[in-house]
Amino acid sequence: MRRRDLLRMIGATAGGAAMYQAMSSLGLATESPFRGTPTLHGAPRGASVLVLGAGIAGMVAAYELRQAGYQVQVLEYNRRPGGRNWSLRGGDSFTELGGFTQHCRFDDGLYLNPGPWRLPYHHRGILSYCKKLGVALEPFVQVNYNAYLHSADAFGGKPQRYREIHADYRGHVAELLAKSTQQGQLDQSVSKEDQERLLESLRQWGALDKRFVYTRGEASSNRRGYDRDAGGGLTAKPLPSTPLQLKDVLGSRLWQHLVDSEIYEFQTTLFQPVGGMGRIGEAFGRELKGVIRYGAKVTAILQDERGVSVTYEDADIPGATQTASAQWCVCTIPLSILGQLPLNVSPAMADAIAAVPYAASVKVGLQFKRRFWEEDEQIYGGMTYTDLPIANISYPSTGFHGGKGVLLGAYMWGKDAYEFTAMAPEERVRKAVEYGSRIHPQYREEFENGIAVGWHRSPFTLGCFAAWSDDMRERHYDNLCRLDGRIVLAGEHASYLPAWQEGAVTSALDAIERLHRRATGGIV
Amino acid sequence: MRRRDLLRMIGATAGGAAMYQAMSSLGLATESPFRGTPTLHGAPRGASVLVLGAGIAGMVAAYELRQAGYQVQVLEYNRRPGGRNWSLRGGDSFTELGGFTQHCRFDDGLYLNPGPWRLPYHHRGILSYCKKLGVALEPFVQVNYNAYLHSADAFGGKPQRYREIHADYRGHVAELLAKSTQQGQLDQSVSKEDQERLLESLRQWGALDKRFVYTRGEASSNRRGYDRDAGGGLTAKPLPSTPLQLKDVLGSRLWQHLVDSEIYEFQTTLFQPVGGMGRIGEAFGRELKGVIRYGAKVTAILQDERGVSVTYEDADIPGATQTASAQWCVCTIPLSILGQLPLNVSPAMADAIAAVPYAASVKVGLQFKRRFWEEDEQIYGGMTYTDLPIANISYPSTGFHGGKGVLLGAYMWGKDAYEFTAMAPEERVRKAVEYGSRIHPQYREEFENGIAVGWHRSPFTLGCFAAWSDDMRERHYDNLCRLDGRIVLAGEHASYLPAWQEGAVTSALDAIERLHRRATGGIV
Repeated sequence: MRRRDLLRMIGATAGGAAMYQAMSSLGLATESPFRGTPTLHGAPRGASVLVLGAGIAGMVAAYELRQAGYQVQVLEYNRRPGGRNWSLRGGDSFTELGGFTQHCRFDDGLYLNPGPWRLPYHHRGILSYCKKLGVALEPFVQVNYNAYLHSADAFGGKPQRYREIHADYRGHVAELLAKSTQQGQLDQSVSKEDQERLLESLRQWGALDKRFVYTRGEASSNRRGYDRDAGGGLTAKPLPSTPLQLKDVLGSRLWQHLVDSEIYEFQTTLFQPVGGMGRIGEAFGRELKGVIRYGAKVTAILQDERGVSVTYEDADIPGATQTASAQWCVCTIPLSILGQLPLNVSPAMADAIAAVPYAASVKVGLQFKRRFWEEDEQIYGGMTYTDLPIANISYPSTGFHGGKGVLLGAYMWGKDAYEFTAMAPEERVRKAVEYGSRIHPQYREEFENGIAVGWHRSPFTLGCFAAWSDDMRERHYDNLCRLDGRIVLAGEHASYLPAWQEGAVTSALDAIERLHRRATGGIV
Repeated sequence: MRRRDLLRMIGATAGGAAMYQAMSSLGLATESPFRGTPTLHGAPRGASVLVLGAGIAGMVAAYELRQAGYQVQVLEYNRRPGGRNWSLRGGDSFTELGGFTQHCRFDDGLYLNPGPWRLPYHHRGILSYCKKLGVALEPFVQVNYNAYLHSADAFGGKPQRYREIHADYRGHVAELLAKSTQQGQLDQSVSKEDQERLLESLRQWGALDKRFVYTRGEASSNRRGYDRDAGGGLTAKPLPSTPLQLKDVLGSRLWQHLVDSEIYEFQTTLFQPVGGMGRIGEAFGRELKGVIRYGAKVTAILQDERGVSVTYEDADIPGATQTASAQWCVCTIPLSILGQLPLNVSPAMADAIAAVPYAASVKVGLQFKRRFWEEDEQIYGGMTYTDLPIANISYPSTGFHGGKGVLLGAYMWGKDAYEFTAMAPEERVRKAVEYGSRIHPQYREEFENGIAVGWHRSPFTLGCFAAWSDDMRERHYDNLCRLDGRIVLAGEHASYLPAWQEGAVTSALDAIERLHRRATGGIV
């Protein structure tokens, strides 16, 4: 019996769920650490959990533990749910360490996601909560063949269209390998039959001509674009374009940006919540109304054999110290902050907390009077890459053909991010406009207002995300994640998916399953 | 002065439009046959135009000629505007040649676009009308790394994820070329310096390891996916997957499908109108309310020195023949039908009309009880390719995580399309379900209803689109497009963009500009 006959039979007799089980066992389904919505139940009578932080990890933990019957309370520093899941919209304010307060002046419907902004199709945990909580999703355009690759030192500083570098690099690679094949240089490693197939495939894949050359003509222009597009009537014969030479493509180093959209986390289909990433946090916040105490700054976490006691300052009652207690604690406070708090955990966990540095990152959102990238340059969504300090310009994946628009005008890491974080916010915005205008000269005329978040000055994270190295992970990761007495940590920092919300979700689910097992007397 | 300084100066002093002019002349803007909304004005007093067909070409012509001051009437065979721009929704009926009538039973909000379904970013004409008429656009997901490539004869008939074939083909190509480079086989054609750059780029681009080998590990899995995805907590270390061997990838011929999304017309960003492609035709129909006479079947077109006279049958008054007249005629009737009508044009145009065959195509829409492709297989939008007769399965790019869904269950060309067209519609649907279930076994359980359009049985087109060959174009294209007395043809068939709505738009604009020049006494 063939595999598909078997599957058909299973489907016909036992239904879709059984079929899916069978598909999994036959290797048609990918294995995911997200094993579906947890089915925790039977919390011990009166069992209570204190969750620290109302970011994604904290709210997933609180949501599921409540479902399982635990008494749950969440303490959150900010005045809103979500943590790094956050959209800045017109009317919002943000005060960073150092005292700068920015007031967002975006028009209605426009936003910047200072933190996460993309959801990959395989991040099944966070996607399942979007579904469960009714957060509508729309495609996020990552790669745009008509956006630019730019280097200040290549092609006289003139931005190249992604499609040109993409097609030309591939075309030249295909031509070189076709040549090697035809010259018999692959005879040792590839059978004659496969060489024939390889040549045929390279011609198609690389847009080579009949002689296996990548050159000006219909084949290459049908990838890289035309000097004049095809149209209708008597004046519309297309005009082919001329490929760049291999040495110019290689020398430009613009090929560095060709892999971005191939990476597992950036492959299509990517999503964004309609209205901003913050919609997820807001939806969790609604579910946990009354459970989350906002404006609560945790100052110490202490546990003993019977429970966990947390002291915090209520932003509405300055100076006074409050206490919250529970039998268990799920702590999602970023390590950068947690490491500075009194906390009685094992030396191994304390070492782990202290070991992991936080990455620097800056995002700048810029509002423009008109969507010139669409109107003038036919760029709808996607990203431009540049070696200027702004690194990226990302165009909105929604609201096409609307009036005003907000660009992600800089998305920076490393050294440049530190430099920008050190500037006053308005200076970051000014610089982003200045650099961006070298790619889009329309910036000067069309810019209206901007907002800039430097994550190392964010009082609720002191950095962007836990920057694990392989060595650190080897030494500290398991110690960080292990249930320590009555405390378990969760968050992107307690995952193999740093910086991703999916890390927060899967980490929280893993943590509460172990906590639940221990709370119900099982072995962890 | 550097290019960008010049541009900056122009922008600062003369504004965005001048800047764009300058960008064009510096080669930063692509040339398009769409030169913006036409600015025809000054129609001669009382000048009139009869437009045949209320598809995109006819409606663009009518819309613009009215703006220019012409008296315009449109005759349309169907009871709706749009022609091939068309969405079938629940409650719609469609009767094809041969007498079969199908009643669409899709749930609210679901649809099939039997004709065009995608809008490329560089189709500036049709996009500009979407903007002008307020037709909202959303991204159309063409390539989906998690959809399947399938061959009945490869990998035991088991569908492969796009990301696997995509990454493995590229990885092996990169490894082979890296080897050739390292063995000095490129010394004749590539400088030493460029060979170094090439190696560096191949490693990154092809996901090779440190020894330039494409093999199981973090690099390759970060493209092709993992056996077990990364997650959070203590049980979530990712497990790398094992690449396919080169010979298996080549032998499967699945590499044929890797170029589809690279082709100029299928590159990101692609769009679809929110609610179905038919929204464009419907919007034009609203603009031309009172101008279009529906249910009018043209039976003859005759011109003399003073004008054009068209006879037609009104579907509401069977048997009676009506006449409509005007000074000029823009005829957008497909050549497959036009060639069968009495029409007094030059022999050259008549030959052209007779010369071009129409392509066969079939689309099948299938409604399912649940979106199992999303729930079970994490496929959101995009397409699966197969060598089964159905050729493609396309997943909706919108309504993610909703309840029911409509798949494009077959999108066929050539021989298979002829065979399916010959079947009764319900048989086409049955076959599409049967073939599709070899890729998605859930079909059997979840299928609800379907609808199938075979374009050669469409009474208003008798085929899908004008299938020009290079030879035909050489001999006939200009003769087809030339103004013939008082008649000019327009439509995708009179363009270098057959089958695309942009061909219809640019063809119509080109045609009416020439018509207007002649009508106002200019030279054509």
